[in-house]
Amino acid sequence: MKVFISLNQFCHFSDIPKKLLKKYSIEYINNPLKKKLSEKDLIKYQNKCDFILAGTEKISKKVMYNNKNLKAISRVGVGIDNIDLKVAKKKQIKVFNTPLAPSDSVAEFSLALILNSIKQINLMDTKIRKKKWIKLQGKMISDLNIGIIGTGNIGSKLIKLLFFFKPKKILAYDKIKKTNLIKNFNVSYVSKKALLENSDLISLHLSSNPETKKFIGGGEFKLMKKSAIIINTSRGDIIDEKKLENALKKKMIGFAALDAFEKEPYKGSMINLENCLITSHSSSFTKSARKMMEIHAVKNIIRFCIKNKKLN
Amino acid sequence: MKVFISLNQFCHFSDIPKKLLKKYSIEYINNPLKKKLSEKDLIKYQNKCDFILAGTEKISKKVMYNNKNLKAISRVGVGIDNIDLKVAKKKQIKVFNTPLAPSDSVAEFSLALILNSIKQINLMDTKIRKKKWIKLQGKMISDLNIGIIGTGNIGSKLIKLLFFFKPKKILAYDKIKKTNLIKNFNVSYVSKKALLENSDLISLHLSSNPETKKFIGGGEFKLMKKSAIIINTSRGDIIDEKKLENALKKKMIGFAALDAFEKEPYKGSMINLENCLITSHSSSFTKSARKMMEIHAVKNIIRFCIKNKKLN
Repeated sequence: MKVFISLNQFCHFSDIPKKLLKKYSIEYINNPLKKKLSEKDLIKYQNKCDFILAGTEKISKKVMYNNKNLKAISRVGVGIDNIDLKVAKKKQIKVFNTPLAPSDSVAEFSLALILNSIKQINLMDTKIRKKKWIKLQGKMISDLNIGIIGTGNIGSKLIKLLFFFKPKKILAYDKIKKTNLIKNFNVSYVSKKALLENSDLISLHLSSNPETKKFIGGGEFKLMKKSAIIINTSRGDIIDEKKLENALKKKMIGFAALDAFEKEPYKGSMINLENCLITSHSSSFTKSARKMMEIHAVKNIIRFCIKNKKLN
Repeated sequence: MKVFISLNQFCHFSDIPKKLLKKYSIEYINNPLKKKLSEKDLIKYQNKCDFILAGTEKISKKVMYNNKNLKAISRVGVGIDNIDLKVAKKKQIKVFNTPLAPSDSVAEFSLALILNSIKQINLMDTKIRKKKWIKLQGKMISDLNIGIIGTGNIGSKLIKLLFFFKPKKILAYDKIKKTNLIKNFNVSYVSKKALLENSDLISLHLSSNPETKKFIGGGEFKLMKKSAIIINTSRGDIIDEKKLENALKKKMIGFAALDAFEKEPYKGSMINLENCLITSHSSSFTKSARKMMEIHAVKNIIRFCIKNKKLN
């Protein structure tokens, strides 16, 4: 069995993933270009491998049709929107991801954006560097009703962190209601409308799919408080970016902290707004998350091999 | 009994302080200029009041000698370095402060600076606004040895917040060692040297006094890790600012997040450095902290009056 590592970096933080592959006598070939591969490159280099250990490069119909050996694509990460899932299904190519690995990291990053936003840290730093010493009044988490949209892995972890800061209320919206969060973390599941209307701060933790596309758009901003803060560490297309920019410009809402964009690298004009904070989709970019993601992704391949009796 | 409110804002967030004064038939006069008072102004307006409800304006020998009625100065805040304490002692003018009121707020702000620093959020935002999309690797609190210098009120509260993020180790330095922190929050009290050498992030929570002046200077930066992050939300003069700037420029340490400066407003050249974050002494500037500080400061006056039988 052979794995093509299409990531531009592998085992940078820990040797465990390599060692796991060796232990099960699975060969691997590293991305020779050490950069995000194009469709053409991917076709060229992955050829004949049984597995792709994948990053965010596009894995298209062409890529899959060009490798008859391909049995599974194992994403080092959560999002699988870079993979043509219809084709994978048709060709019986299994797709794995590592939803649990980066969740601690993303939850902690979300909290960092929350604290930064409510204390206006960025704006103070920016002003002082422009020689304007201004004191901006901060809020405490205990002053806020916090709304969490999506209480999967990351949303739940964020709730558990927030709980210790004693928010006034934790409102949540999700199809699946977790009894544990209701019982032990004072979470109240409410309608989308009620959450938007009553939250001082809203944090988005949804996966990207046709149903969640533009989940927050013009109508939603109208429902939100004028002082509301919105945090997005999930996927860019969950928010209608044009409508968000308009809402920020017209001060329909108070502030946005964004780690994800419709198109990345983000090159839009929100960079000119004071009432937002922009980071480069880096919430899961920590040593421990990368390490865990690679380990989980390799284990997904090993598990597949064992299940399908592909190992000697 | 009469109080001169030398604060530029009073009862902005809550009427409770006013009501308390009224309840005990204590008169009060507001700062008529609604700005930080100069020595001259303070002498002019405070005259004949029994108490000063004070902000950070300088309360000098002259001020105290010009008001024979002055019985106590009640600071709305923690630091009393703006008051000439020798003269106060000599003239038997009591000095009160409100150490407990803002500690939740300062602890939460400290954590905000910690998270901001380890995730490099500010730098990402700044770069993206200059059209440079860079991903910067973040750290998690669980990757770090955290050193807390000063485990009084604020230091202890910060430790309790940090504990939930599972830091590798919590090292602490203080003359008084709190058993509760050792037993329940895995705190190890160590020497100053051991803390400086072994911490990935150091947060300062000391009060300002002759003993703590330049507590962190050239020698200390030499002991610290090259990647070390230093956080100061206490008082500016605890750090030798010139030496800090030099340490940051020469990358002797990794990063500094500063909410306090030797001279405020800060106008120095650290605003040109990328490896620091600068805020405007705003850690206690939250609605709830201001409210609590004013209530505590007024209660200190009331308690003094009761104790000294000054009320009708």
